[in-house]
Amino acid sequence: MKIQDIETPAIVIDVAKVEANLARAQAYADASGLKLRPHIKTHKLPLFALRQVALGAVGITCQKVGEAEVMADAGVTDIFLPYNIMGAKKLDRLAALHDRISLSVTADSAATVEGYAGRFTDPAHPLPVLIECDTGAGRCGVQNAAEVVALAKRIDAAPGLRFDGLMTFPPRRQTEKVNAWLGEAIAALKAEGLDVNRVSNGGSPDYYNAATVTNATEHRPGTYIYSDRMQVGFGAGTIEDCAATVLATVVSRPEPNRAVLDSGSKALAADQCEAGGHGHLVEYPGAVIKSLSEEHAVVDVSACERKPEIGERVRVIPNHVCPVVNLYDEVYLLDGDTVREAVPVAARGKLR
Amino acid sequence: MKIQDIETPAIVIDVAKVEANLARAQAYADASGLKLRPHIKTHKLPLFALRQVALGAVGITCQKVGEAEVMADAGVTDIFLPYNIMGAKKLDRLAALHDRISLSVTADSAATVEGYAGRFTDPAHPLPVLIECDTGAGRCGVQNAAEVVALAKRIDAAPGLRFDGLMTFPPRRQTEKVNAWLGEAIAALKAEGLDVNRVSNGGSPDYYNAATVTNATEHRPGTYIYSDRMQVGFGAGTIEDCAATVLATVVSRPEPNRAVLDSGSKALAADQCEAGGHGHLVEYPGAVIKSLSEEHAVVDVSACERKPEIGERVRVIPNHVCPVVNLYDEVYLLDGDTVREAVPVAARGKLR
Repeated sequence: MKIQDIETPAIVIDVAKVEANLARAQAYADASGLKLRPHIKTHKLPLFALRQVALGAVGITCQKVGEAEVMADAGVTDIFLPYNIMGAKKLDRLAALHDRISLSVTADSAATVEGYAGRFTDPAHPLPVLIECDTGAGRCGVQNAAEVVALAKRIDAAPGLRFDGLMTFPPRRQTEKVNAWLGEAIAALKAEGLDVNRVSNGGSPDYYNAATVTNATEHRPGTYIYSDRMQVGFGAGTIEDCAATVLATVVSRPEPNRAVLDSGSKALAADQCEAGGHGHLVEYPGAVIKSLSEEHAVVDVSACERKPEIGERVRVIPNHVCPVVNLYDEVYLLDGDTVREAVPVAARGKLR
Repeated sequence: MKIQDIETPAIVIDVAKVEANLARAQAYADASGLKLRPHIKTHKLPLFALRQVALGAVGITCQKVGEAEVMADAGVTDIFLPYNIMGAKKLDRLAALHDRISLSVTADSAATVEGYAGRFTDPAHPLPVLIECDTGAGRCGVQNAAEVVALAKRIDAAPGLRFDGLMTFPPRRQTEKVNAWLGEAIAALKAEGLDVNRVSNGGSPDYYNAATVTNATEHRPGTYIYSDRMQVGFGAGTIEDCAATVLATVVSRPEPNRAVLDSGSKALAADQCEAGGHGHLVEYPGAVIKSLSEEHAVVDVSACERKPEIGERVRVIPNHVCPVVNLYDEVYLLDGDTVREAVPVAARGKLR
């Protein structure tokens, strides 16, 4: 099967680019003395999770219990969930995972810790809990070193839990701030006799500066495997590194400078990025995807010397590839123009 | 099963509100002498498509061949695809549908018509083709009456096709412009002896003004079944009419005025709307969802007198409900707080 045999819209993955992106990231981790723990939210494929581990990753990161279940079923044995897991059903599922793989989680509140403590009670097999730290990104996380110490004590006081360290999803380009925050927290913990086994940092945009966060022991990049327009904008790679494209068909040419693709927001997602527009057309780099409706992408081709024709196929590099992958039941793995296989996106839609 | 037994995030549907929205729309169509042909892109559920037909709809609208296949399998017998369908595989699937249901499609170019003409060749069972008209929305569609006439002649010249009328996805709040455009096209067609059997208008925002588009014979609203913040902004209903909400859990309260929900862009989609923010919290109308990442919604609760607690569940009315539904494998139908059933979103992810 060749790329021209694939019905559109579809996601196609350039396997050679994936391999290059994975190898480069692992080499950086190895050279930096950092453990790599890739976030599978981008690809959602057991195939690539296992490949990441085979290349040297210490384990993987999932955001949802349902994603972790898929990956554990596929043979991944070390999974970190950097999320506040709560609710009786999710805690039961978490306990089932903890019985069969090396699992770790996070908490940023006493309420979350109480939930874990109520479900995990075996001192011989404690659940490792990292404390999420808001080092400036303004999402989840405790706000200062005093809160870290108080929460670490709560964790350690629970027989079935083990305080394992710190986790942060850091603000971009603010290494000094992140170092200062984590440094203060680690010092405060040590002053109380609390060991910090792991410090988990995250994000693809700053991954190739990850070694400058000197307190971190591991990193959780996700998007680096495929990259996208946002990552290119962040300087994390070039447009040529982008391994995942949406294959689309030109379905209309209503005016000389307007083309319409069959890849709307249901195929490209609606995430915006600083470069503007809704994706980069590989074959028409001057084209601008001006607007998306669910099944249409309206493209301004006025800056293109050669203009696309009706029925022609194009490849679109998405603004943000992670939510795009989540829209498809399968991806097509390509060697050049040859389809190696169609792979189900096994962890797609695992919302819970 | 009660609503509190549902794991979050999840879509819950208030069936009483659905019924009220459907009844109101059908009553308007009946009173206006318009045929109602609901677009199923919003709900993607055979259950509700069949309900729409039972209430008086002449058939349904799908945007994708794959959606039409799901709906035909469920027993819907009249489906309109207002899209340029192209490519050998899709045309084969279209032909299979044409053999078993009343099917109609659109075209806005000679290339699309040639595709249909090459696949549909039986004069005894012609494929009805409507011409898509760009009456100002700037998406697909021919640009003027002369192009309509030329394309209608091409359709009629193909033995296996039948020119059936006009279709438009109109610009909002521009009835006069749409009437003038369609009126000119219809006059030009009549002057050439070409009958206009159907004129299909679309969109939920202006649905309750649809009768003012005097040339239209049918309308294809989609979002009206659930409604959302965008529709409320367009004046197409009130916030109380919104039947679909995302049930979410407060997973973090890092600061007094910050709450974080487990409903990120993978649960609420990233579509923006004029009201700002990323959804309306039913229980906390003063709260503002400031930002989404894939698995987190960061909420500013500074304007809320009572503030949500960790572990509390809230319901979020999405900005744009259609892409939200497309993210879930199932929806929960509610009678009050009782779960009637979990229904698979059978036409979810039917991209092709």
